[in-house]
Amino acid sequence: MSAVIPPLVLPFVSERAKKTLDKLAIFVEKECIPADAVFEAQLGEGVDRWKIQPSIVEDLKNKAKALGLWNIFLPKNHYENGAGYTNLEYGIMAEQLGKSTIASEACNCNPPDTGNMEVLAKYGTEGQKRKWLAPLLTGDIRSAFLMTEPDTASSDARNIQLTMTKDGDYWVLNGSKWWSSGAGHTKTVVYLVMGKSSPNDPDPYKQQSVILVPANAPGIKLKRMMSVFGYDDAPHGHGHFVFENVRVPASNMIVGEGRGFEIIQGRLGPGRIHHAMRAIGVAERSLEYMIARASDEGKLAFGKKLNEHGVVLQWIAEARLNIDAARLIVLNAAVKIDGGDAKAATKEISQAKILAPRVALETLDKAIQSLGASGVSQDTPLAAMWAQARTLRIVDGPDEVHSQQLGKNEAKKGLSLQRKIQDQKSITSNLMDQYEVRDESPTKALL
Amino acid sequence: MSAVIPPLVLPFVSERAKKTLDKLAIFVEKECIPADAVFEAQLGEGVDRWKIQPSIVEDLKNKAKALGLWNIFLPKNHYENGAGYTNLEYGIMAEQLGKSTIASEACNCNPPDTGNMEVLAKYGTEGQKRKWLAPLLTGDIRSAFLMTEPDTASSDARNIQLTMTKDGDYWVLNGSKWWSSGAGHTKTVVYLVMGKSSPNDPDPYKQQSVILVPANAPGIKLKRMMSVFGYDDAPHGHGHFVFENVRVPASNMIVGEGRGFEIIQGRLGPGRIHHAMRAIGVAERSLEYMIARASDEGKLAFGKKLNEHGVVLQWIAEARLNIDAARLIVLNAAVKIDGGDAKAATKEISQAKILAPRVALETLDKAIQSLGASGVSQDTPLAAMWAQARTLRIVDGPDEVHSQQLGKNEAKKGLSLQRKIQDQKSITSNLMDQYEVRDESPTKALL
Amino acid sequence: MSAVIPPLVLPFVSERAKKTLDKLAIFVEKECIPADAVFEAQLGEGVDRWKIQPSIVEDLKNKAKALGLWNIFLPKNHYENGAGYTNLEYGIMAEQLGKSTIASEACNCNPPDTGNMEVLAKYGTEGQKRKWLAPLLTGDIRSAFLMTEPDTASSDARNIQLTMTKDGDYWVLNGSKWWSSGAGHTKTVVYLVMGKSSPNDPDPYKQQSVILVPANAPGIKLKRMMSVFGYDDAPHGHGHFVFENVRVPASNMIVGEGRGFEIIQGRLGPGRIHHAMRAIGVAERSLEYMIARASDEGKLAFGKKLNEHGVVLQWIAEARLNIDAARLIVLNAAVKIDGGDAKAATKEISQAKILAPRVALETLDKAIQSLGASGVSQDTPLAAMWAQARTLRIVDGPDEVHSQQLGKNEAKKGLSLQRKIQDQKSITSNLMDQYEVRDESPTKALL
Amino acid sequence: MSAVIPPLVLPFVSERAKKTLDKLAIFVEKECIPADAVFEAQLGEGVDRWKIQPSIVEDLKNKAKALGLWNIFLPKNHYENGAGYTNLEYGIMAEQLGKSTIASEACNCNPPDTGNMEVLAKYGTEGQKRKWLAPLLTGDIRSAFLMTEPDTASSDARNIQLTMTKDGDYWVLNGSKWWSSGAGHTKTVVYLVMGKSSPNDPDPYKQQSVILVPANAPGIKLKRMMSVFGYDDAPHGHGHFVFENVRVPASNMIVGEGRGFEIIQGRLGPGRIHHAMRAIGVAERSLEYMIARASDEGKLAFGKKLNEHGVVLQWIAEARLNIDAARLIVLNAAVKIDGGDAKAATKEISQAKILAPRVALETLDKAIQSLGASGVSQDTPLAAMWAQARTLRIVDGPDEVHSQQLGKNEAKKGLSLQRKIQDQKSITSNLMDQYEVRDESPTKALL
Repeated sequence: MSAVIPPLVLPFVSERAKKTLDKLAIFVEKECIPADAVFEAQLGEGVDRWKIQPSIVEDLKNKAKALGLWNIFLPKNHYENGAGYTNLEYGIMAEQLGKSTIASEACNCNPPDTGNMEVLAKYGTEGQKRKWLAPLLTGDIRSAFLMTEPDTASSDARNIQLTMTKDGDYWVLNGSKWWSSGAGHTKTVVYLVMGKSSPNDPDPYKQQSVILVPANAPGIKLKRMMSVFGYDDAPHGHGHFVFENVRVPASNMIVGEGRGFEIIQGRLGPGRIHHAMRAIGVAERSLEYMIARASDEGKLAFGKKLNEHGVVLQWIAEARLNIDAARLIVLNAAVKIDGGDAKAATKEISQAKILAPRVALETLDKAIQSLGASGVSQDTPLAAMWAQARTLRIVDGPDEVHSQQLGKNEAKKGLSLQRKIQDQKSITSNLMDQYEVRDESPTKALL
Repeated sequence: MSAVIPPLVLPFVSERAKKTLDKLAIFVEKECIPADAVFEAQLGEGVDRWKIQPSIVEDLKNKAKALGLWNIFLPKNHYENGAGYTNLEYGIMAEQLGKSTIASEACNCNPPDTGNMEVLAKYGTEGQKRKWLAPLLTGDIRSAFLMTEPDTASSDARNIQLTMTKDGDYWVLNGSKWWSSGAGHTKTVVYLVMGKSSPNDPDPYKQQSVILVPANAPGIKLKRMMSVFGYDDAPHGHGHFVFENVRVPASNMIVGEGRGFEIIQGRLGPGRIHHAMRAIGVAERSLEYMIARASDEGKLAFGKKLNEHGVVLQWIAEARLNIDAARLIVLNAAVKIDGGDAKAATKEISQAKILAPRVALETLDKAIQSLGASGVSQDTPLAAMWAQARTLRIVDGPDEVHSQQLGKNEAKKGLSLQRKIQDQKSITSNLMDQYEVRDESPTKALL
Repeated sequence: MSAVIPPLVLPFVSERAKKTLDKLAIFVEKECIPADAVFEAQLGEGVDRWKIQPSIVEDLKNKAKALGLWNIFLPKNHYENGAGYTNLEYGIMAEQLGKSTIASEACNCNPPDTGNMEVLAKYGTEGQKRKWLAPLLTGDIRSAFLMTEPDTASSDARNIQLTMTKDGDYWVLNGSKWWSSGAGHTKTVVYLVMGKSSPNDPDPYKQQSVILVPANAPGIKLKRMMSVFGYDDAPHGHGHFVFENVRVPASNMIVGEGRGFEIIQGRLGPGRIHHAMRAIGVAERSLEYMIARASDEGKLAFGKKLNEHGVVLQWIAEARLNIDAARLIVLNAAVKIDGGDAKAATKEISQAKILAPRVALETLDKAIQSLGASGVSQDTPLAAMWAQARTLRIVDGPDEVHSQQLGKNEAKKGLSLQRKIQDQKSITSNLMDQYEVRDESPTKALL
Repeated sequence: MSAVIPPLVLPFVSERAKKTLDKLAIFVEKECIPADAVFEAQLGEGVDRWKIQPSIVEDLKNKAKALGLWNIFLPKNHYENGAGYTNLEYGIMAEQLGKSTIASEACNCNPPDTGNMEVLAKYGTEGQKRKWLAPLLTGDIRSAFLMTEPDTASSDARNIQLTMTKDGDYWVLNGSKWWSSGAGHTKTVVYLVMGKSSPNDPDPYKQQSVILVPANAPGIKLKRMMSVFGYDDAPHGHGHFVFENVRVPASNMIVGEGRGFEIIQGRLGPGRIHHAMRAIGVAERSLEYMIARASDEGKLAFGKKLNEHGVVLQWIAEARLNIDAARLIVLNAAVKIDGGDAKAATKEISQAKILAPRVALETLDKAIQSLGASGVSQDTPLAAMWAQARTLRIVDGPDEVHSQQLGKNEAKKGLSLQRKIQDQKSITSNLMDQYEVRDESPTKALL
């Protein structure tokens, strides 16, 4: 796999990362992808799906540990035992993980646990680390991050309404959360909950806190699990919770009261790169299906294989081009983050966030269309990958929010560009005199 | 300008190239762009437009020489006095050149002269170099490349029909050529003409030759000039020629009889990078117009500036994203060529060839729509840039030809991908037994 | 609802049809749509979903009968007791049915039963009608049409491989079928099965037959149910069958041996109009959700309601335009069929088949994006409608097959259009002489 | 041509209109289209292009009169001698006119004269009619409508700044106008000028007036002609005027002071239908070129005719579908206007205004791409038609203004749709109780 790293990217990939990438690619192709269907079969049907952790995942986790593919997401600056890959390096690994349903968890690199581990590694107290980070790093427990709420536009975290009220050495939580991914997992024993702890703080970005809540705390009610298209995404799933007077020790607060924004912002940049690169992996895998199907001699259209049809060849060419462009955009963002200034990478991260799922969905759509009925069914991974990728245009803020933000930032150059064009027009005007030709353009209109 | 090189690209740009880039960017912005309208005014109207070389270009040429911006396109391996920039480095310079009508010629970097100079530098005899290359390098003469023919699909050069017949020490040429860019220029004194010299060679790729033909050779008739969306593209223009018994000394043959393909192929790779990067420059300049217009307080829509309208902000964001992606795709191709294996870069070059004009046209369309009536008129450079960019989807082979070729190459992986998926299914099947779960997928169907 | 029939359509809608339409629209809005969620809740979870017919459907069926909305799909020329609406009239009714999951069945207008009833009404013997058509018309039984096969490109029915072998007074069936919609329903007691009965007939369009097979015939194995983007589409579902030596009385053959093509072709024209108009209904309902969401004051983005955001307004405007255009295209096809010449309507039917699902999917995508997480979940009908609409681009032949066929038919005009343009050029040439002006265009090139 | 009227449209076309349509179609195909190139050749080059009216147009005008194709645009309710076709009927005729550069003028149906004649017929005094309408109806003079201004967003007419000041029996005009189509024509002797006559009227829609200004009035300076892409659109062109103390008799005021809005609004509805249907004609003609080129055996790609390439067939199919849909949308708007309530047709007219040029441009783009270099040049009508069609997305208000307006109008249904959905949820809730199943959807969230 390291042999096909784009030339523009090569200087940023160490030999160590190349070796890990190659090992990972084989692990995903030969072990994880074949295991995906077994995982699904082990889950079974109906309510049982929430009651087990398929044994095949645990077996793969042990293999990943043995292969040195465990926790490869974790950078050294967050954790001394971190794998120490750059965001770009882990990015190209995440592309491989994205091709399989269970590869990420097999390598302990699945969201939301990765983000939660980063938060704990970076901000946790020693006690918090011992209690929650250690077993997360070994894969013995799972966690969830409870941020989104059903009744507010909570992609703007200032709108969050779950209340946290101080009561002695405890915080008391009341409110609702949904789309809490990982909530269904039998191993999920802790939630990182974002709430409004300091409603009176004049700075609206300092009213929120993130606190650790044991999953079995009294007062937490799992109202139901949300489905995505027709998928329940068991065994982790997406929970809809109600919190009624849930009491949590004050020592469970992360970093400190009012620092919720700081926590989620540090969490989002690299997380978006991971999401985006997994989406690239999804796109690559769907392109593989499309190309394989196009060479199938058993299913001809108008007497020809699909790869003898110009329209399908164009789909393949467009997919190849779009995926290659999206990968460069995402890795360019990763390099910018690696350059040390994650905040300066806002533009690049937004671009990655928008483009990768778009390309994945376009490629999946064409792959599904190439495969026909198989494509929409349980017989290929395409339909499930599509449903998953579709949510990426919504989670962490819909595309349009990022797009508007990008547009506004670019538009800030408006006045200086007006001046630049005006200056050029002035020079032109002088040159017209100098070269003794007539200027016919309007005098007053700017453009 | 060197300050905004994308992080992924930075390792490939030398300090010397950065300095040249910065000088060039200022030269284009402050001298060339303001001169564009003067150049057009000096051309005047009607048939006079073909009779002059506006003096402002000659003045700019002298400035460019003084600034060290002359002949920056020419790599060292082609010519000992070449500027010696890599394809990537010259690529980011070409982006700047693309923003102005006359900047390329001001720096002696305008097609088709650049390609012709490369051909002569690489393949020319000493005599040919002395006679034609030397004055081309100084900008004293101009040249044209006559390849396209009106009555054949000549984007496949095997179809070329202009005949070259040996008659003693002469070749005699008969046939038609059109879209011969540069043909109208008063300074154009030589044509590189591709024709069929060896129709009986069994290898269809060895039947063509390229020969140097003085513009004033008897028998050459300039039938007319072609227009592009109403533009005559004076003073260089695009000629439609008829050749009737045009006699050329055999010593004018380049490299040797039957080596025409070799010549045009060497010419195309870097040329496409140049075209593509100039198109990126066009896109950037049109985005500047769009953003400037969007901040205009004098022309409100529904009582608001355009940059307060979500639709326009989205246009700006999309343009920013698409341009950034296209630039990375083109520069990735440039790096691959710089890696020494231009032939291995076919895929990357085709991607660049397709994507850059597409993005330029999309951005121009939105810029034109933002500016309204000004955008389609002579008052902004947008309409003319659009017409120019539109031809890029056709010249050197229409997009679809490249797209089909890309698709076919990708599709070649079909059988190995079928096998890969089948292998994964076999492993799955074994795992199903091992984990004692039931496999319900169809046994026979591939996918 | 009759008040918003487009002016171009009005002349084709009788007063009787308007009244039925208005009654139906209210029935769908006030009774069926509210019942959809109850229907889903009654189905429950897991394997139980295949064991019941929710009682609410039976109650709605009685209401529909009482309201005169029962069997409104059935034209008089097929059945003396048919409702007698034109394809256009039933088309605008089908739009209403498409808005609800269960409205079609509530009115006994659900596929595949409608098509099957039409086949039986048109081609069935008296015995077949008595046994199967009568209880289908009363809604007491359900049926399925088994055509698609897992291992062939069966959208071209000539590829069908299930064998029918004559054995005395019986036909013996062997082979596989999948995507047999309706197969899961507890009430489904009969399958119309297409197979290859006459493999040696020299006419490849006369090798297939359609035969009636009781669902409980020995040798039929329901291998599994197919899912669509995670949805099982219970209680009817889509079955994957294996036929092993299934014996059927020869009297069950429809019309006669070798007439399978005739049967499916008569079935497809009106069926595609129904599908398309239900898709228009889906689009309308999703637009309603988008518009309702856009006015929600509880969920603001950047401090504004979605309908104060230009991008969302543009989505709404585009949806309105696209839906209105698609409706006219579909109804234009319906009028052409009503004109009596269904075969001459091939172009129009293909256009309807392509455009309606495309518009439905585009509108749904924007509606989902507007609603965010709710849109992809079980909380709105959008996700399920999307999955359903996505299959319409595949069933009855993928879009691309129809598109290529359309393109080929149009392209047949090529030579006559060449002649037309050449004739115009000749006239121009004469006029040039007559008006004494010079013609500069190329003489030989056609265009 | 009447034989291919879509079935949905047929009931609206009288036998008389069908006959005229057929005659017109032949006139356009056999006389006007062949004359287009002659017209262009007669215009010549440079400044001479503004000095002549090519004689071929005058000859065609006489032919059109003889054939009964003169003034077919003019409805009876505007003028007793009007041709009396409905908007729909003239619409399908305008489609034919759109295929040729000069057909519209040949039939005296060219803008802006048509709109100006309608204004004079509807609002003019007897004196105004005698002086201006009579010679316009005979085609002896031409006119222009001066509305757009260079320094304001004048697509919102309230922004118009040209001042009209009463001075005794005269109005004195000061200001600038541009994009005044028809201004270049040697026969244009009168301008309808919109200006601000009543700046103090409290109603911003009553501050403007339209007045008749002789083209030779002192103080009018034609600053320059605007070009569209590289086309000057001679001989009529688009003028940029400066008005300095231009004195006009008060009797030249149309209808009355402050009634400018009323005048332009009456002018726009049918005018937009005309524009849109001509654009449909443009699309049809470009499709003809694409199909003809695709059958060209002389220019093969990959050894095959273009119509053997799937991608081109798809282009053709899409073009056919899009054109057919756009035509129905435009004619649906025409029927609505014909129904008597032009104001109620705002939605339909906007849809027509947006869709027809979009489809024309898409079809032209594919046609140009099919024809390659010929397509962008003077050798086919495609490039010029493209430039013309591109302006339609801007004139009379850019698409986006119409789109936002459409979106806002649809969005007004927001609250009632919220209620409708809430009501359905309430019914669902009751049904859940009644059928004794559990409702799991969120209680508070609307959607």
